Amino acid sequence: MSCDFIQLANPGVQELHPYQPGKPISELERELGITNIVKLASNENPIGISPKAQAAMEKKFSELARYPDANGYYLKAKIAERVGVDINQITLGNGSNDVLELIARVFVAPEHEVIFSQHAFVVYPIVTQAIGAKKVVIPAKDWGHDLEATAEAITPNTRMIFIANPNNPTGTWVKSDELKAFMDKVPEDVLVILDEAYYEYVEDKDYPQTIPWIKDYPNLIVTRTFSKAYGLAGVRAGYAVANEEITGLINRPRQPFNMNSLALAAAEAVLDDREYLQRALEVNKAGMEQLEAVFKELSYDYIPSVTNFITVDMGKPAGPIYQHMLEQGVIVRPVANYEMPNHLRVSIGLEEENAKFIRVLREMTK
Amino acid sequence: MSCDFIQLANPGVQELHPYQPGKPISELERELGITNIVKLASNENPIGISPKAQAAMEKKFSELARYPDANGYYLKAKIAERVGVDINQITLGNGSNDVLELIARVFVAPEHEVIFSQHAFVVYPIVTQAIGAKKVVIPAKDWGHDLEATAEAITPNTRMIFIANPNNPTGTWVKSDELKAFMDKVPEDVLVILDEAYYEYVEDKDYPQTIPWIKDYPNLIVTRTFSKAYGLAGVRAGYAVANEEITGLINRPRQPFNMNSLALAAAEAVLDDREYLQRALEVNKAGMEQLEAVFKELSYDYIPSVTNFITVDMGKPAGPIYQHMLEQGVIVRPVANYEMPNHLRVSIGLEEENAKFIRVLREMTK
Repeated sequence: MSCDFIQLANPGVQELHPYQPGKPISELERELGITNIVKLASNENPIGISPKAQAAMEKKFSELARYPDANGYYLKAKIAERVGVDINQITLGNGSNDVLELIARVFVAPEHEVIFSQHAFVVYPIVTQAIGAKKVVIPAKDWGHDLEATAEAITPNTRMIFIANPNNPTGTWVKSDELKAFMDKVPEDVLVILDEAYYEYVEDKDYPQTIPWIKDYPNLIVTRTFSKAYGLAGVRAGYAVANEEITGLINRPRQPFNMNSLALAAAEAVLDDREYLQRALEVNKAGMEQLEAVFKELSYDYIPSVTNFITVDMGKPAGPIYQHMLEQGVIVRPVANYEMPNHLRVSIGLEEENAKFIRVLREMTK
Repeated sequence: MSCDFIQLANPGVQELHPYQPGKPISELERELGITNIVKLASNENPIGISPKAQAAMEKKFSELARYPDANGYYLKAKIAERVGVDINQITLGNGSNDVLELIARVFVAPEHEVIFSQHAFVVYPIVTQAIGAKKVVIPAKDWGHDLEATAEAITPNTRMIFIANPNNPTGTWVKSDELKAFMDKVPEDVLVILDEAYYEYVEDKDYPQTIPWIKDYPNLIVTRTFSKAYGLAGVRAGYAVANEEITGLINRPRQPFNMNSLALAAAEAVLDDREYLQRALEVNKAGMEQLEAVFKELSYDYIPSVTNFITVDMGKPAGPIYQHMLEQGVIVRPVANYEMPNHLRVSIGLEEENAKFIRVLREMTK
């Protein structure tokens, strides 16, 4: 080939390393020649999808040769009512990844700086790099956000700050008063993206309820997902809440049919399935206690988590341990790419799935 | 609010007017207080979805709390086999809109020029504007592409050319020898995106089979969709075929879960449903003849079309005619935003749907 196409790509893309997701279970089973793998690797909801979401999708089959509702009217109306904002403050996304990327593409240019924390969700550096903007990484404090250092890192070139609360892959979270003190320090022309993908799991009364803050902090954008507690990871549904002006801007380059008709229907239905959410949270709580008890018993340090995963220090490089567990039929997530080479992130599964992980761990620890 | 957020948006976004899709039928019926609206407005497949696609989606319900296969391995393998390329030449998209946008974001920067034709698909100017690049619009020739003028418009700043073949909203197409002569004139560092959304409908032997050309023209990218002849508009599935180097670059900023699990399954299944495709093409051919006969009888000029729609000259501003038809329960598409103020684009429906449009047209023409 006579033309070197990488030279034609935008500078940010030339340096971009794409997100490496886990393999599908069916592929791994085929490669390893084993069956009944337990996957505790992607912070998925172990109880399967909501029956109400399934019924809503089945009802849509007869309309699927038609384009989706590009405005997502019914889903936006339901979310707006649930979180107490106007419908013009909601942006729908093909998962919250989609809205995080849209926000960055609308507001960030190569000359800007984007701030996020060490050990923070890998999508933040990816969307920043794709644009070719400067990544400013704040060293973590106790595995979580150091909000004081974050505020101090703001320069005239800073356009955006990503805060994950709770944080993935550490499971840590910041309290209401800390976050408010931080917001008071951020200039209004610096946008703060508060990624609340694990919002539904947090029970602590000091965890901030941030959507009502948007009227006081117009530079605040809150994102949430249906992939975790609502169990729709395979369906792709997420959203952002912001003031009306920002929402209008984010929607300009949004692909009109970014959420498909099934995702719109499923997300709308699961918001009404309080029984499903309740069960998901109960299974998660019980599973978290099950794992914490074993880590304590076997003297593994773990990072206390308010999410649907728990990240544990194996005391030595975790890569070979991950590989060994995989061969025993249990997939967890190594997090060396998050600068945590000795940790494994374990998603909370069903009781028997957690038990299989525990059996393999006990064998290894003998 | 003290901060004017539009000033913070990237220059391209500040000037961006989002795509205005049609309203869902249910909303229109509610607004107009009528029922049984016939929608011939969005070039959708009137026969509903493939039963094989539906069965494949139903089989996926039990896995939907898990993330989709980020690599789309099985669907890519099937497409690659069908079109005769390597799997590393396929990029999957959430509809072809998604791949068109990805390609532009990877290769186009604000200093570049992007060329497309007058009366061409509205997504080309939108993705160009979102980046802030310069739009170069070539006047149409006989409602279609003027490929000679397009080649002459190339400058050192030209990075990309969009060619829709067949073209939407005019239904015109370019022949193999014309297109090849054009490709011979395009420098290798100018990418040509050949949007073949309506590929399956074209029967003429002079219509180019372009995917084998990629080995001769490494700057050629072909995009296709499952939204039209394959009837999956509501599910969102499309793809691009290019050389391996370009494909690798396009996939770098691709959201790993851009196609959901249901879309992956449905698209894979429909590729095996030759009976469905056959029926879709037969219904379309019969419907096209039904409409052409009436336009001839009533002396309406129309643009001969090889697609699943036909665009007709109403001889006067079409906006009020569109509105009148809507009130009679028939939705067609006014195309004034494509600089065709007197035309209406009519999608081919089922025989009885076309007949309802014809009744309303006859009434109006009396």
